[in-house]
Amino acid sequence: MSSLIRKRTQKIGQPPGTLVHIGAKKTDKVGIRIIGYSDTQFQEKEAETVEECLPFKDKPTVTWINIDGVHQVEMIEKIGKYFDLHPLLLEDIVNTEQRPKMEDFEDHLFIVLKMLSYREEENEIMAEQISLILSSEYVISFQETVQDVFNPIRERIRKGKGRVRKRGPDYLAYTLIDTVIDNYFVILEKLGEKIEDIEEELVTDPTQETLHLIYDLKKAILFLRKSIWPLREVVSGLERGESELIQEPTRIYLRDVYDHTIQVIDTIETFRDMLSGMLDIYLSSISNRMNEVMKVLTIIATIFIPLTLIAGIYGMNFRYMPELEWSWGYPMVWLIMLAVGVSMLIYFRRKKML
Amino acid sequence: MSSLIRKRTQKIGQPPGTLVHIGAKKTDKVGIRIIGYSDTQFQEKEAETVEECLPFKDKPTVTWINIDGVHQVEMIEKIGKYFDLHPLLLEDIVNTEQRPKMEDFEDHLFIVLKMLSYREEENEIMAEQISLILSSEYVISFQETVQDVFNPIRERIRKGKGRVRKRGPDYLAYTLIDTVIDNYFVILEKLGEKIEDIEEELVTDPTQETLHLIYDLKKAILFLRKSIWPLREVVSGLERGESELIQEPTRIYLRDVYDHTIQVIDTIETFRDMLSGMLDIYLSSISNRMNEVMKVLTIIATIFIPLTLIAGIYGMNFRYMPELEWSWGYPMVWLIMLAVGVSMLIYFRRKKML
Amino acid sequence: MSSLIRKRTQKIGQPPGTLVHIGAKKTDKVGIRIIGYSDTQFQEKEAETVEECLPFKDKPTVTWINIDGVHQVEMIEKIGKYFDLHPLLLEDIVNTEQRPKMEDFEDHLFIVLKMLSYREEENEIMAEQISLILSSEYVISFQETVQDVFNPIRERIRKGKGRVRKRGPDYLAYTLIDTVIDNYFVILEKLGEKIEDIEEELVTDPTQETLHLIYDLKKAILFLRKSIWPLREVVSGLERGESELIQEPTRIYLRDVYDHTIQVIDTIETFRDMLSGMLDIYLSSISNRMNEVMKVLTIIATIFIPLTLIAGIYGMNFRYMPELEWSWGYPMVWLIMLAVGVSMLIYFRRKKML
Amino acid sequence: MSSLIRKRTQKIGQPPGTLVHIGAKKTDKVGIRIIGYSDTQFQEKEAETVEECLPFKDKPTVTWINIDGVHQVEMIEKIGKYFDLHPLLLEDIVNTEQRPKMEDFEDHLFIVLKMLSYREEENEIMAEQISLILSSEYVISFQETVQDVFNPIRERIRKGKGRVRKRGPDYLAYTLIDTVIDNYFVILEKLGEKIEDIEEELVTDPTQETLHLIYDLKKAILFLRKSIWPLREVVSGLERGESELIQEPTRIYLRDVYDHTIQVIDTIETFRDMLSGMLDIYLSSISNRMNEVMKVLTIIATIFIPLTLIAGIYGMNFRYMPELEWSWGYPMVWLIMLAVGVSMLIYFRRKKML
Amino acid sequence: MSSLIRKRTQKIGQPPGTLVHIGAKKTDKVGIRIIGYSDTQFQEKEAETVEECLPFKDKPTVTWINIDGVHQVEMIEKIGKYFDLHPLLLEDIVNTEQRPKMEDFEDHLFIVLKMLSYREEENEIMAEQISLILSSEYVISFQETVQDVFNPIRERIRKGKGRVRKRGPDYLAYTLIDTVIDNYFVILEKLGEKIEDIEEELVTDPTQETLHLIYDLKKAILFLRKSIWPLREVVSGLERGESELIQEPTRIYLRDVYDHTIQVIDTIETFRDMLSGMLDIYLSSISNRMNEVMKVLTIIATIFIPLTLIAGIYGMNFRYMPELEWSWGYPMVWLIMLAVGVSMLIYFRRKKML
Repeated sequence: MSSLIRKRTQKIGQPPGTLVHIGAKKTDKVGIRIIGYSDTQFQEKEAETVEECLPFKDKPTVTWINIDGVHQVEMIEKIGKYFDLHPLLLEDIVNTEQRPKMEDFEDHLFIVLKMLSYREEENEIMAEQISLILSSEYVISFQETVQDVFNPIRERIRKGKGRVRKRGPDYLAYTLIDTVIDNYFVILEKLGEKIEDIEEELVTDPTQETLHLIYDLKKAILFLRKSIWPLREVVSGLERGESELIQEPTRIYLRDVYDHTIQVIDTIETFRDMLSGMLDIYLSSISNRMNEVMKVLTIIATIFIPLTLIAGIYGMNFRYMPELEWSWGYPMVWLIMLAVGVSMLIYFRRKKML
Repeated sequence: MSSLIRKRTQKIGQPPGTLVHIGAKKTDKVGIRIIGYSDTQFQEKEAETVEECLPFKDKPTVTWINIDGVHQVEMIEKIGKYFDLHPLLLEDIVNTEQRPKMEDFEDHLFIVLKMLSYREEENEIMAEQISLILSSEYVISFQETVQDVFNPIRERIRKGKGRVRKRGPDYLAYTLIDTVIDNYFVILEKLGEKIEDIEEELVTDPTQETLHLIYDLKKAILFLRKSIWPLREVVSGLERGESELIQEPTRIYLRDVYDHTIQVIDTIETFRDMLSGMLDIYLSSISNRMNEVMKVLTIIATIFIPLTLIAGIYGMNFRYMPELEWSWGYPMVWLIMLAVGVSMLIYFRRKKML
Repeated sequence: MSSLIRKRTQKIGQPPGTLVHIGAKKTDKVGIRIIGYSDTQFQEKEAETVEECLPFKDKPTVTWINIDGVHQVEMIEKIGKYFDLHPLLLEDIVNTEQRPKMEDFEDHLFIVLKMLSYREEENEIMAEQISLILSSEYVISFQETVQDVFNPIRERIRKGKGRVRKRGPDYLAYTLIDTVIDNYFVILEKLGEKIEDIEEELVTDPTQETLHLIYDLKKAILFLRKSIWPLREVVSGLERGESELIQEPTRIYLRDVYDHTIQVIDTIETFRDMLSGMLDIYLSSISNRMNEVMKVLTIIATIFIPLTLIAGIYGMNFRYMPELEWSWGYPMVWLIMLAVGVSMLIYFRRKKML
Repeated sequence: MSSLIRKRTQKIGQPPGTLVHIGAKKTDKVGIRIIGYSDTQFQEKEAETVEECLPFKDKPTVTWINIDGVHQVEMIEKIGKYFDLHPLLLEDIVNTEQRPKMEDFEDHLFIVLKMLSYREEENEIMAEQISLILSSEYVISFQETVQDVFNPIRERIRKGKGRVRKRGPDYLAYTLIDTVIDNYFVILEKLGEKIEDIEEELVTDPTQETLHLIYDLKKAILFLRKSIWPLREVVSGLERGESELIQEPTRIYLRDVYDHTIQVIDTIETFRDMLSGMLDIYLSSISNRMNEVMKVLTIIATIFIPLTLIAGIYGMNFRYMPELEWSWGYPMVWLIMLAVGVSMLIYFRRKKML
Repeated sequence: MSSLIRKRTQKIGQPPGTLVHIGAKKTDKVGIRIIGYSDTQFQEKEAETVEECLPFKDKPTVTWINIDGVHQVEMIEKIGKYFDLHPLLLEDIVNTEQRPKMEDFEDHLFIVLKMLSYREEENEIMAEQISLILSSEYVISFQETVQDVFNPIRERIRKGKGRVRKRGPDYLAYTLIDTVIDNYFVILEKLGEKIEDIEEELVTDPTQETLHLIYDLKKAILFLRKSIWPLREVVSGLERGESELIQEPTRIYLRDVYDHTIQVIDTIETFRDMLSGMLDIYLSSISNRMNEVMKVLTIIATIFIPLTLIAGIYGMNFRYMPELEWSWGYPMVWLIMLAVGVSMLIYFRRKKML
């Protein structure tokens, strides 16, 4: 988590609006994919330069420009120039440490989201920033890497499946947001499985490893929470906001997205509570096991120490010890020892210590 | 809990409004029961197809259509077409993972509730989704399985008992919601009994099993909370909302339902606090028991180890050990041992360790 | 607590507004006491039937009808009929599991309160429901049992002491509420004493019993909280509400009641925090005591085990053990043992273990 | 804390507005000090009776009447009569268990504050109630005892230092409130020192005593919080309130007081968090120390028990034990014992147990 | 922390608005640096006296006066006189214990910030107060010491880099605030590294030292929180406030600062949660280690105590002990001991205790 913050400091002292890419450079090539569509028309293009997008800008169709890779600062600057975007908006695109947020620049909305993925081996949540610019004519989406998560949407547009071809860019933006949030359910699912595994482990054989697993999951959930909590405001801001860029029929879909966001947050909170309950079980398991160990020690010691004393007594070298002379002395000692041991065992069993 | 989330992911990538049934398929047959009534009239019918409902739609009576089973997506789609319902509404009916919610579609209200039941053996809460559509003329209710929970209401309508025959569909919807919430008290009751059992167990004989029971109850209460908290908003939204579908005299009844909801939530919170108090008692019981074990060990060891030393000393083989020659040496050692042991016991009793 | 919920379930399936008495039947006879008063007039009567109240209803005096016992459902129904009360209001009177609440029925206000008492032996809070109906002409109060808690008010009315005779029914209602809330201070006082006792016990001699006491008090405070928290809204609703039944000069008195309510809630929260602090002390006391026990064991074992080894060594039967032949061998061993033991003791004292 | 509540119950059953002094009678003599001042005039007087205040009331100067001691109920009643104060206001003055609050009686404001002091030996916060009445012409202040905390203000008025002589009674009231709140910093300071002492103690030598100290401080901070939290509302009510008694230029000073109040509350919360952190350290210190004790025991036992066995073996009396006859048998046993002991020590050191 | 509060008390009893420097005197020389600039002009000067600033005041350029050192109360008073500042504002400048805040004096805004730095060795956060006065013509900034943190801004103004030369004083104020908040990321980074170090340590070798480190970090984060939380309101007050001193285009930059503030607060909360998770791991590590120690003791004792008994038995001096005479008695005892020991080991291995 802290490693994410580290790179930020290189910006200190720079004038605001300076574009400095913050985040890992995750891809070499920056890919531009342009799709123009209306109810009846469809056009698709892989572009090399920003300039190739410009013809699409003036057409009456809905234009979706998708950019994979935000580390080429000059390209982002060009887009800013051509589409007349505020320098701070551009800064937020290249600085991939943003919180999810929505900003209203009157003729366009700027939305920052987090695409999350879960690395099961390290129990770590990986985040990728997705920035959307929504105007009345186009949607521009920025991703850090080439990802195929938006492919089903492209496919639907191509084939004219669903409502997307009949609606404006606000519906397209909704579809993109919906896809990102749907993905969170995949992560919750995996986390849920991990949690069930731990529950299992806690009953059968909890180890120090289990504790570290619980801690790692707790950390992952903290991270998840940090990325998803602000989304609530973002989506409700879109749904209830005053921006005319969001048309009335689309708002009902955004309400649906809002419901999903709340559901994700609910589940995260439930997981948190479950993990803290597990910690209690873990700690009490340790105590219980210690208890068991102590009992074994106590029982052994309590039975054998008195017997050892008896043996010690008849190992004394006093000249006048009448028992030593008795011919049945030795078997008698064995009997006494047996009696003491057995009565001890019975006592422990009665006390439920055995 | 996480198993509920799992199935959701099959929907990812689908266009919104696609009807995919999410949840266990709990029944084979889908049953449709139609009741039409007014103050003076009454008609009841078991239908096979959606089309059979249509004649009821246009009559001046209040129509209640109850559908058991939401996995037949085509049937839901047909209902949507005939009653002019929004695709997202239909999607929410078949996706049984919704949070309780209320949505206002102007000419009809859409309400999602959770019918809960408690499986005592597994300490698990089972949830079934109940969706209601309330218009000025009809109420459509969707259940996942055939349940007899609404039977008393049917009986009351048939016999003209209570106010229900004299009122509109809003009163019918209220009655259904009231029945669902009344059912929560049954669960709280059972949970309350379990909690009392655990309290008993904690005093008499707490085991690792008790701890797991506390954790299971905690989980059940988490689940209950997740299902009931949003209800507060739903009911208060109905009561204070602007929808003209809810008539003034019915609002006073909804206020009553609201009171019950708050009461349920209050009790859930109290249970949570009690369970966390129980955990503290459990943990301290373990500590106490360990303490007891340790005391036994300590007392035995502390008494017998010095005695063993004495025996050891007179077991040494030094040529010149005057005591060994004394004729009263051996009984003296016995006396010394007795004295040491008894004074130890007295010491421990004084220190309140015995 | 859960036992309170249990009886509720007998109502499930009944049409709303059905009067079913929920709660223990605490008295046999239902007593009706009627007081009519104005600045100059005063009349008092013990009635047998509801009908005897009716003449009072139409007089210009303030009428106070007090009913002890709410289990005779027919009587409550009659009152409802004569005074034109809503069926849900009547239902709330006989269902003694209500939360404190205030409902405005325009020409009358309905107020539910909890009269609490504390059984010191069981550390349990007992609750009795008090319902008030305030109109512009009368106050009707319902209690579960015959209680003398309102006697001082009756006495004041009879003797014309205080302001009550000069004011309307709103002031009478205020006086009743004030009396109920004043009673909470008695309970807080007793709980405060118990808490001080536990504090004392924690310092001198905490036992498993102390823990259960802490838990019982915690439960009592949970119950208290549940009964008193909603009162805040009730009183502030009366004070700031729009109802014309509350006259301006009475509002200032209600503000005073509000202050008391907040004070009670504050104290409850403080008690909660103190109890949780006590739990920490208790748990650490157990740990400390275990520590003490362990120390005794460790010191004894650590001193005697090496000595036993020495004795063991000179108990060996080797033919050639020069020390055994020395005439000062035996006393030397004693000296060695003494030296080892004393240096051990010094070591422990230095390590602050003794 | 609970002792404060106790006395309250003597009021139960009394009509509201009955003046009953609640609180310890802290002084015998009731002192009245009157100061009248304007920009140019100044007059000061020690009065014996309330009547002596009356001439001041009608003068154009600002009048400050300070009353030390509120247990003489008749005197308070007289003041109420002369200055036309509401009976509930008078009741609040003599009942010294009020929460801090501000009430607006249109032509005068009533403010209740808590003057706090900290008894370091008992770790207890002592509270004294200060009531202020602010009208457009005078300020009346009530204290429980003779205190010199307002002396610097008197001095400033006498000498005409600062702004106080040039302003109205609202500024005087502000000065009094400011002085009370400034005093809280003294307490925070002392608590801060105590906390630092405990921090020190926790590192060097935590005892059961430390725990009780932490608990006492926690209780003191709970009490502090209870007395200071409501102040926030009081001061912000004065600053932002609609009362015309507070003039515009004084509001800016009240904003300053508000800032101080927030600062005090912030610090209290920080102390709370620090104390809970300390508790964790304390508990883990106990665990650690137990660990140390256990280690000593384990190491000693583990080293000496095997050696004792060896000695025991060669103490057996078998007729045929070849080792016993060897002339180097005895030294060999010593060597074996040494070897076993040393290798054990090495083993423990490797395992980081030593 | 408490040491910060201590010095405050010297002010008690002083009339409000009295300038008393509270805080460490961190520098001797008080430095005044004046910069005047517009889009085309630039002038810079190191001043000795406040009077030298006055010519700048009346010029049409933006004037930035930076004062290093606030302990020379007379100088601050002079500035107050020349620039017509409220005495309470001046008091807040010299009292360096302020919370971050923003106050609107109509023709100027007063902003208090905290410049923080982190001393890694002591794990302590050091705070320095930065006060800003923003009017329509000038910005005055007060620092406690000479710091070079604002140098990059000066450099940018000198060279005309960035937007700063083209904008008014509100943009300059924004730049100063932005610089302060950017600095918080440096601290978060360092804290993040520390936290990662502790995570590492917890896995490998947690000691009592680790616990104290966790506590110190927790304290540092408490302090950080106390200094940064109020900032949220400050920045949002500037952004959304009604002051005309902040021009519209600057508000968008302040929104950006607001985002950063939220990000800092988010990270602080995450750190808090992580630290509390670490504490759990630490405590359970101690328990685990104790468990390990106990196991070693138990195993050793349980194996050797029975063997010692056997040796003790054959060390008894009974005249008639047949085994002693057997020629294979001694090796048989060895075999028995071996058998007992090995079977014990197997038993423990099966029980997973080894």
